[in-house]
Amino acid sequence: MTEPGVIPAWVAEMDYAVADVITDALLEAVIRGRTGYPPYAFGGELGRAYADWAERHFDQTVDPELVIPTVDVTAGMRLALDVLSEDAPVVMPVPAYSPQLEIAEITGRKRVDLVVDPDDERAVIDLEAPDAAFADGARTLILTQPHNPWGRVFTHAELEGIRDVVVRHGARVISDEIHAPLVLPGADHVSYLAVDGTADHAVALVAASKAFNIAGLKCARVVAGDVATRDRLFGAPMARNDSWSTLGVVAALAAYDEGDPWLAAPVERLDRQRTLLEALLAEHLPLARMRPLEATYLAWLDLRAYGFRDPAQVCLERGRVRLAPGHDYHPGSTGHVRLNIATSAERLTEIVHRMARALAT
Amino acid sequence: MTEPGVIPAWVAEMDYAVADVITDALLEAVIRGRTGYPPYAFGGELGRAYADWAERHFDQTVDPELVIPTVDVTAGMRLALDVLSEDAPVVMPVPAYSPQLEIAEITGRKRVDLVVDPDDERAVIDLEAPDAAFADGARTLILTQPHNPWGRVFTHAELEGIRDVVVRHGARVISDEIHAPLVLPGADHVSYLAVDGTADHAVALVAASKAFNIAGLKCARVVAGDVATRDRLFGAPMARNDSWSTLGVVAALAAYDEGDPWLAAPVERLDRQRTLLEALLAEHLPLARMRPLEATYLAWLDLRAYGFRDPAQVCLERGRVRLAPGHDYHPGSTGHVRLNIATSAERLTEIVHRMARALAT
Repeated sequence: MTEPGVIPAWVAEMDYAVADVITDALLEAVIRGRTGYPPYAFGGELGRAYADWAERHFDQTVDPELVIPTVDVTAGMRLALDVLSEDAPVVMPVPAYSPQLEIAEITGRKRVDLVVDPDDERAVIDLEAPDAAFADGARTLILTQPHNPWGRVFTHAELEGIRDVVVRHGARVISDEIHAPLVLPGADHVSYLAVDGTADHAVALVAASKAFNIAGLKCARVVAGDVATRDRLFGAPMARNDSWSTLGVVAALAAYDEGDPWLAAPVERLDRQRTLLEALLAEHLPLARMRPLEATYLAWLDLRAYGFRDPAQVCLERGRVRLAPGHDYHPGSTGHVRLNIATSAERLTEIVHRMARALAT
Repeated sequence: MTEPGVIPAWVAEMDYAVADVITDALLEAVIRGRTGYPPYAFGGELGRAYADWAERHFDQTVDPELVIPTVDVTAGMRLALDVLSEDAPVVMPVPAYSPQLEIAEITGRKRVDLVVDPDDERAVIDLEAPDAAFADGARTLILTQPHNPWGRVFTHAELEGIRDVVVRHGARVISDEIHAPLVLPGADHVSYLAVDGTADHAVALVAASKAFNIAGLKCARVVAGDVATRDRLFGAPMARNDSWSTLGVVAALAAYDEGDPWLAAPVERLDRQRTLLEALLAEHLPLARMRPLEATYLAWLDLRAYGFRDPAQVCLERGRVRLAPGHDYHPGSTGHVRLNIATSAERLTEIVHRMARALAT
């Protein structure tokens, strides 16, 4: 969507150019005519490359043979729910990535929201809530680690607390870790699967798409906790999971094997951008509240103090900047927006200026 | 899967190189960094390009605004079943494309097989069978037009007969037309949607992937019969249908807009290959039966006369040629194989020689 005169600050992609190593790999693949079906297999080069990456970046040991391709992370979530989860309600921490708010329903399950109070100082999963939901019959927790749009990176201790509740009830976890490569300085990514005692009840969904700006190329991965889980997923009818793209595989391999030097630059830029955003808000929108942004380029802003139910709409109409409205992520909520900071300092400054003119005058 | 010394003649891709117009479009898109999300919209350039193609190739008027992207044809079939079809059994003509044999089950529906007797001279849909199935409660017919693996192109009169049965019972049709660009000389493709009185109960699934060898790029289309159907499909939760690839869109546009001259050559080659196959079978496997191949590059061979339950296994072990076993397409059947003829005359000759050595000695 291109709108004349409107700055887009809503869609979850970065303004930064694609890594040369990815471009080069794609060009070579196209020239070699690699447009047919990718191999239908788990493990392989993709498993090896992801395991190497997880070792280097997260100090995590991943068995390459437990890595299964899938077209994208949300499709992988649907697959895991369909194939692995009992036919019982799904616990969803909210605010949540909006298309995933519908994932329980499309698999025929009820969603149980675990809502973070916008007044809470810190966005945490209150363990009593999933405990109660599981006691009431829920059987799956959707974890987003790092969290979009909370901007949180859950600590090892927090994940252990979640695990204890899940294990007590014999429930499952689907951990969306798409933003793991974009943990910012000060925090470290811990995969839910890296926590002891999770292998038999969890999968992690991982991708290079957010960090490397290749969401349109369509190849993510489901990491199974153990062989039994891998076999259940890979033994499912092929039509549940065979849509990943050949060029998506090529791009993911290039990102994982050769993308480290490139990725350092956007992480450093995002670190500066989040600091800049705090300064801009303090100066121009002093009533805005933002919890510390520990990962991702997506800032969750509490603008309730400005008195608008839908500040994104006000910013679009009066300020010509398109933000993502908070109610897309937290149905029924008011006064919040999600803002994409993966742009230049100049543009981020202009965005906040426009927001301030729209909201504070 | 690469196996030393084994000729692969099973997977549904052509040995022919990708069209230069597609390669050029992909190279340009990669260089321009088009790796992010494709537009989430119906109609648009893709709708316009497909409508132009349908007009030129099938003499069919398609409203571009009724064309919705989807990642691949089988995913589009799942979408249509999930969103449009009643929760009731699905009628599936058999033999059928194997991953689609599981599509009813994964949408929570029962499959009712409409089996073509291998002894029948011609593969046709016996209208009494769907009539009985609909009377028993089925509500959707999966049509494959042209048919894989039957090799049939249904005539306008046959489609009218199907429509009459469907309309009588208030049922729906999902028409997989992925092979439509590969109708061979002597037959003409008629979309089910081009038959009067089908718009309110049908969708067609179309793609450039088979004809242009771009199945790994992942962008197909659902053509809705009317606006109400389009709106139901596009109004479904995004996670049901948002996985098509940006480079798949680029390739489909190039194929539809600029691919006509290229496509003429493979169609001509396939026409020669099917004639060659008939001659080779007559000489080396005289007991093999093959109905006329009217479309696709996938020949369905009845090898029962050679006395093997699984001739594909025999051809692999004794002949070092991998064919697709017939029981994958018709569960419980014996003595059939599917053979890919989209290769060189030399290789097709060698394949039949190997089959003959394996089966007839």
